[in-house]
Amino acid sequence: MKQEEKTLESKLIHKGRIISLYQEKVLLPNGKESVREIVRHKGACAVIAKTKEDKLILIRQYRKSLDKTIYEFPAGGIEPGEDIALCAVRELEEETSYRATEEKVVYLAGLCTTPGFSDEMIHIFYAEDVEKISVKKDCDDDEFIEVLLLDESEVLEWIMLGQIIDAKTVCAFFLYQQYKKSND
Amino acid sequence: MKQEEKTLESKLIHKGRIISLYQEKVLLPNGKESVREIVRHKGACAVIAKTKEDKLILIRQYRKSLDKTIYEFPAGGIEPGEDIALCAVRELEEETSYRATEEKVVYLAGLCTTPGFSDEMIHIFYAEDVEKISVKKDCDDDEFIEVLLLDESEVLEWIMLGQIIDAKTVCAFFLYQQYKKSND
Repeated sequence: MKQEEKTLESKLIHKGRIISLYQEKVLLPNGKESVREIVRHKGACAVIAKTKEDKLILIRQYRKSLDKTIYEFPAGGIEPGEDIALCAVRELEEETSYRATEEKVVYLAGLCTTPGFSDEMIHIFYAEDVEKISVKKDCDDDEFIEVLLLDESEVLEWIMLGQIIDAKTVCAFFLYQQYKKSND
Repeated sequence: MKQEEKTLESKLIHKGRIISLYQEKVLLPNGKESVREIVRHKGACAVIAKTKEDKLILIRQYRKSLDKTIYEFPAGGIEPGEDIALCAVRELEEETSYRATEEKVVYLAGLCTTPGFSDEMIHIFYAEDVEKISVKKDCDDDEFIEVLLLDESEVLEWIMLGQIIDAKTVCAFFLYQQYKKSND
């Protein structure tokens, strides 16, 4: 079945700090026209990091969009030209003060977060044996983050109890479990 | 740690068909001001549905945002005032022509898809013993969908091979596996 939609017209509605909103007039496979709203995002990386003591690193962060403080794995936007593995390592260090060594960072998956209205892709990494560094690196100016260390079983419990509601965190956790299962 | 951000000013940038974009000036916990871009969405439901023959129902759908055809579990936006379980059942039927009976629909989780810039929550359901109905219900006018029936092991394989890249689908699959593990 031919499903592609040809763009007839693309209009930038708003260029924001981390997203831009476009409105696109498209030609549907049935010859009719429709309008798509597309939120364009530079892409992001998330990292499930494990310490030498087998603890997983979560952060607790207020999210204005939800007006709620939620638990997530460290994550952040890819800088222009930045290597995605380095982005994951950088975000981990900035948000948690834990450092990953490059050879212990594994790519788990690249996922689309909201294909219905956004092109955002998030790349999920697993970092083993991360170590606390003494010098606290700075987060972004507007990030206020608490760091938590949890056992794998606790993370699973928090997901199943609905205490962890962040989709990328849920994906990363289960992909990590699958990865361990195939590689242990 | 106090993390909340007070809204000083909220400006509607664009009211779209399925999303609205707001720009909010906020007061940070450190007393400084910042700007947040928030994409407001009415919320959605997704459903992992299993036939009596133990097949999971996926759809193959072109997504303009990604300019790509991807595999997903059936999902869609909640209508004003609509019960979320009924929304899941309705979307399943509209997109795949399979019908779920209400008492065989289980709530698995409510997840935020993109807390960094959107308030979208997606509610994940599992529907057992769904049955093909003869009369094909109509999708939305601008949806062109193929239906696929896969074994559970195939869905897992497609996730691990990167052939399924949709985050809600990955979440739903693993949450379903956990649910089965606890309830079998």
